[in-house]
Amino acid sequence: MSYLESITSPTLLLNEQICRNNLESMATKAQKQGKELVPHFKTAQSLQVGEWAKEYGIKELTVSSIKMAAYFCDKGWDNIHIAFPFNPLEVHTLNQLASKQSISVQLINKAVTDHLVKHLSNTVGFFIEIDAGYGRTGVEVSDFGLIEEILRTAKTTDKLQFKGFYIHPGHTYYTADKHKIYEESIAALSMLKNKYSTEYPELKTRVGDTPGCAVVDDFGDVDQIGPGNFVFFDLMQVNLGSCKREDVAVALAVPVVDIKKTKKEILIHGGGVHLAKDVLLEADGSKNFGEVVLLNDKGWTIPSERSFLKSISQEHGLVQASDELLANVKVGDLIGILPVHSCMTADCMKSYMTLDGKWVDHTEGA
Amino acid sequence: MSYLESITSPTLLLNEQICRNNLESMATKAQKQGKELVPHFKTAQSLQVGEWAKEYGIKELTVSSIKMAAYFCDKGWDNIHIAFPFNPLEVHTLNQLASKQSISVQLINKAVTDHLVKHLSNTVGFFIEIDAGYGRTGVEVSDFGLIEEILRTAKTTDKLQFKGFYIHPGHTYYTADKHKIYEESIAALSMLKNKYSTEYPELKTRVGDTPGCAVVDDFGDVDQIGPGNFVFFDLMQVNLGSCKREDVAVALAVPVVDIKKTKKEILIHGGGVHLAKDVLLEADGSKNFGEVVLLNDKGWTIPSERSFLKSISQEHGLVQASDELLANVKVGDLIGILPVHSCMTADCMKSYMTLDGKWVDHTEGA
Repeated sequence: MSYLESITSPTLLLNEQICRNNLESMATKAQKQGKELVPHFKTAQSLQVGEWAKEYGIKELTVSSIKMAAYFCDKGWDNIHIAFPFNPLEVHTLNQLASKQSISVQLINKAVTDHLVKHLSNTVGFFIEIDAGYGRTGVEVSDFGLIEEILRTAKTTDKLQFKGFYIHPGHTYYTADKHKIYEESIAALSMLKNKYSTEYPELKTRVGDTPGCAVVDDFGDVDQIGPGNFVFFDLMQVNLGSCKREDVAVALAVPVVDIKKTKKEILIHGGGVHLAKDVLLEADGSKNFGEVVLLNDKGWTIPSERSFLKSISQEHGLVQASDELLANVKVGDLIGILPVHSCMTADCMKSYMTLDGKWVDHTEGA
Repeated sequence: MSYLESITSPTLLLNEQICRNNLESMATKAQKQGKELVPHFKTAQSLQVGEWAKEYGIKELTVSSIKMAAYFCDKGWDNIHIAFPFNPLEVHTLNQLASKQSISVQLINKAVTDHLVKHLSNTVGFFIEIDAGYGRTGVEVSDFGLIEEILRTAKTTDKLQFKGFYIHPGHTYYTADKHKIYEESIAALSMLKNKYSTEYPELKTRVGDTPGCAVVDDFGDVDQIGPGNFVFFDLMQVNLGSCKREDVAVALAVPVVDIKKTKKEILIHGGGVHLAKDVLLEADGSKNFGEVVLLNDKGWTIPSERSFLKSISQEHGLVQASDELLANVKVGDLIGILPVHSCMTADCMKSYMTLDGKWVDHTEGA
């Protein structure tokens, strides 16, 4: 029986082979350059995908919340890094996790470092996050006063072990010249490494985000790369040049509930609660919330004429359909939607179905 | 102990009293006009909130998926209406639900009506959805050919019972003159009622959406109103003039993880996976993903100077903070965020905490 026969409502399909290809490709790239790949698992949030990742030599991973860290805890990972400025209200949970799992956190201010010094009962590592220059989070690279204040404070306990510096150059998502951003990030990390490696000979530097890791070939003396989205990719990454449409490993299977041939519109059960509301702009300014693929027993194919979701509400999605699609689809069929932002779609859907009809776990569905 | 002491990570607070006030206010408005209020529960998606609604005389409700219908099934509702063009792949589940619960669906084409005629084993009601004029879903009001084709097809079985016409004027969200939209919708429903009431003397007409139901005072000869969002309201509704900030019944409690006083920025753990990515535009074109309220033991207060979320990513939120807020908040505190779109935030969060620390259910968390 085809996996398709069991689907009656919006279901997130995961093509294991594409996902494995993406893992292998990034692992090979890292290995060739002598870098360690520590993927960010906020995208897949899945123990099963984690097991696939281990087959490509991946030993550590990154998550973005303590909830995700708890999910991956005690599953054979050498270390789990929580790449989010540590939330001091969660120190009790951190202590529990650290009693059974090597774990590291991210620090960017003295207040939280003080709090950890006072309340840690188990040893945890920490990275200092450096602001990559777009102002979301992190210590400014030139703010040695703050860097040293954090390091000095951490030294007052043996429970905090400095692991290194972390940069997330998220502005590669908005900037054409990703190489220039990476040159700056790599130069910043290199400078910090030189400055602090005498005192901390074991310190590592890590840089990571999918658009950069996908297109940059020279990571300089950075030790680790930490992309996340590459595991699945999505339309945003296609637009950024990180991958091809054929590399996108997830598609939302949705039922067709109405067709208006004269308006070239197909109404699907699939909206903001399934895909999230991330959006791309077409050349003519119209919105694109996802693109149609044709489902078959072995997965999906990308049609030669593009059809895309031009509007969504909570549960509804309205497809601007090509003639090819209109000729091949009827009410009651399933079609696939490649998501604009796979991390958000996966978080909405909370599980995956593989092409042999098996369910794959996600943190939010556990 | 205050409910606040138990919160360590993003948590959706529900102020029961505000929610009850919103229910009572809309129920009173409907009653005064002799209309039946059939609220759309895609916003709250909660059995507990449903029980509160019953106290204000509400006997039927609307949902937007068969999953939600299953959740509310057999809980003492006179009828559950699934206000979404029926997805023919779900007829088996529909039959199961209809064996124990009065249920109605929405039809907009012959294909699905044919499918139901063939596969229904239990009786269900149906509304024909009329396109309110903004082209998302429904039969065009002048398309009597299609209306009669659906009615004729339905008559070939005793399992399909025509209940009436339904209009969702969702374009009130984008149009200043909500009264004009309602005049058109009400006139359309009135015309259809006159045309078909001889043959179907029991038929009902229903119109519903929160911006319209909140500001319109004359619903003409419409029988039922069906707003959804009013149960909680949100910033979008404040902007549309449907309510005041004080009427918003939910706020996301979030931990403060960093403060940059010179940049007047507060970093919170709270992002797209918690709030969803619905956004309002400020007068100067900057984005607003939610507004800060100050939490206390009894709920929250709205500060005199506005602070708002200017950017969010998957887990991060960056607040543009007022001087008042900066003076009163430190790292490790909790602040509240009024959501832009409460339906989507509730769907992301999957549960609520009341101000006495009790958990309230949501379909997605069940």
